[in-house]
Amino acid sequence: MSDSFPFEIQAECRVTRARAGLLHTAHGIVETPVFMPVGTQATVKGLAPRELAGDLDVRILLANTYHLYLRPGPDLIRAMGGLHRFMSWPRAILTDSGGFQVFSLSGLRKITAEGVVFQSHLNGDTHTFTPESTVEAQLAFGSDILMVLDECPEYPVSHEYARTAMQRTVGWARTAHAYFEQRRAELPTRHALFPIVQGSMFADLRRECAAQLVELQADGYAIGGLSVGEPRPLSLEMVETAEALLPRARPRYAMGVGLPEELPEYVARGVDMMDCVLPSRNARNGCLFTSQGTVRIKQARYREDVRPLDPRCKCYTCTCFSRAYLRHLFQAGEILYAALATLHNVKRYLDIMREIRHAILSGGYPEYLQTVRSAPVEIE
Amino acid sequence: MSDSFPFEIQAECRVTRARAGLLHTAHGIVETPVFMPVGTQATVKGLAPRELAGDLDVRILLANTYHLYLRPGPDLIRAMGGLHRFMSWPRAILTDSGGFQVFSLSGLRKITAEGVVFQSHLNGDTHTFTPESTVEAQLAFGSDILMVLDECPEYPVSHEYARTAMQRTVGWARTAHAYFEQRRAELPTRHALFPIVQGSMFADLRRECAAQLVELQADGYAIGGLSVGEPRPLSLEMVETAEALLPRARPRYAMGVGLPEELPEYVARGVDMMDCVLPSRNARNGCLFTSQGTVRIKQARYREDVRPLDPRCKCYTCTCFSRAYLRHLFQAGEILYAALATLHNVKRYLDIMREIRHAILSGGYPEYLQTVRSAPVEIE
Repeated sequence: MSDSFPFEIQAECRVTRARAGLLHTAHGIVETPVFMPVGTQATVKGLAPRELAGDLDVRILLANTYHLYLRPGPDLIRAMGGLHRFMSWPRAILTDSGGFQVFSLSGLRKITAEGVVFQSHLNGDTHTFTPESTVEAQLAFGSDILMVLDECPEYPVSHEYARTAMQRTVGWARTAHAYFEQRRAELPTRHALFPIVQGSMFADLRRECAAQLVELQADGYAIGGLSVGEPRPLSLEMVETAEALLPRARPRYAMGVGLPEELPEYVARGVDMMDCVLPSRNARNGCLFTSQGTVRIKQARYREDVRPLDPRCKCYTCTCFSRAYLRHLFQAGEILYAALATLHNVKRYLDIMREIRHAILSGGYPEYLQTVRSAPVEIE
Repeated sequence: MSDSFPFEIQAECRVTRARAGLLHTAHGIVETPVFMPVGTQATVKGLAPRELAGDLDVRILLANTYHLYLRPGPDLIRAMGGLHRFMSWPRAILTDSGGFQVFSLSGLRKITAEGVVFQSHLNGDTHTFTPESTVEAQLAFGSDILMVLDECPEYPVSHEYARTAMQRTVGWARTAHAYFEQRRAELPTRHALFPIVQGSMFADLRRECAAQLVELQADGYAIGGLSVGEPRPLSLEMVETAEALLPRARPRYAMGVGLPEELPEYVARGVDMMDCVLPSRNARNGCLFTSQGTVRIKQARYREDVRPLDPRCKCYTCTCFSRAYLRHLFQAGEILYAALATLHNVKRYLDIMREIRHAILSGGYPEYLQTVRSAPVEIE
């Protein structure tokens, strides 16, 4: 497996489970730990590809299979030369399987061992996702990293239901994996497929799931079913539990996390990859992450504030505009607000990841963790 | 007057009234004829200043006094170091007087010889604009080119009312001009003030208005009250009528015009400056102007169209993205659509202006006019 998807570990923390590495994809090298901005509908809301590559030096983006499957559809994207070409993004792309959105967005019809029948949230049309069909859709997109179809139960859920869903997810992972290996052998392009550890907030189910998925000897492993409303200590505990069973040599991806102050915590628990809509969604809602804490830009205190949003940040937003101007754009509902705010928030996430990586590589991660744990979250 | 606002005519067409020139402002030289993108609320919707200056090489922007007066207010903008600094735009800015919006947007209360009392469209608060106060607001913004307060009647309107409104506008222009001259003498910064020729669609009133305003020996002259719903031949006729009386050595600005195919017509009638929300507003609505005609991007014919929006255009949108991708972004309601579409439409306007200027400078404007008059408006 690893021949087609080399992952090189460069350094490991002497105290925590943190590690720094390099992921070699067909669309460039990704330095880990990495945060992947979310490009739901083949665009990161508010940012152009040249800003993602130029201003932010993003190496890998996430796109959502559910959304792209419904609109514009895998056939169209394949006809357009794949997602990279369609959205003019020459670097790596990871796509989820669509499972999460099927369970959270759509009018769900029926789950069976074969797959899931659901209704589009756009127009109510009925569609079916199977482990094979979601691999096929992601291959049509030309994704560098594909995810297996999984069932992501809501929180809280009974142990009994969580077990059923987890077992179904393992079954789907086996089917998807076999199908993917067969398809991969036929393709000239290079792709990886990650199964997803589920099990809700039950440590025994997480362990059982991880143990079964490890047998697949997959290219990497995702930990899913997080950020569904559970208390944060529980998410971290579930990651710890699953991670202990995952192969050291393969990348681990914690799906849908997290807040800026949580990123170092996941990394300390052996996570190499993360994604989250928070930096972009919160930006649009007026919640801006800075090195000094969170700025809620609509507050009257920023009305005449000539200072940059984050004086330590080197992004276009912070080097050219004042808090007062950003507040004005936000209050006036201007498009430029979303663009400048998203640019900054994503930059903040990437800056944190660069600090984390630097601390691991230089052997100072435990000290870094101490410092960030005592930093204020809200601006005083 | 002209010492503080030099306008240099470089070439005049041998057949039409078109001319090419250079406007020397305190924030750089503007090549005319010029199209000014509209930055209503201190931002051109969908574009960052670095795109306006970098991608598009825009030399002068328009901003709206009515909107900026209400939010964030002239005091705040003055405290922030003026509009240029507030919006991070180092090049020239022209502001209108707010008259047009008072008459089109606000709950109007009362017009007198002294000014106009109106209600904010945002919260219903009562405000007063006088010829002096709108000059003062525009000086607080630090505008390079200010406009006098004018009354812009709707269309159609009786000759009687149009005369009353025109006479009031002339009175306001005299007051504003005297106030401006006094303020200008006190200021270290360099500004110009343009009165506005009104008179609805009545040639006699346009002539009467122009003749009276010319006595002010202003820095330049605007022709207002256009694009209020009148048939296009009438707008062109009113410009012709007014322009014949305006001093040749001063720039003429046709306010709020026009469609791409109309730009050369106004220039042929002696217009040096234009502004319009059409390129940006139509972009957002899915109407894209190309060298081959208008593209309505939501049409199904563009669903799988891999071609650039305009194969002859060199903008970021046309060099990196397909019509199919733009259509997808439009259908999905993505912010990036507005950004890419606006970038292209404004580029198209500026490309037309560059063609026009080149044709005038090279002596081929009559031939250019023939060619564009026979070009298709809608894409076949």
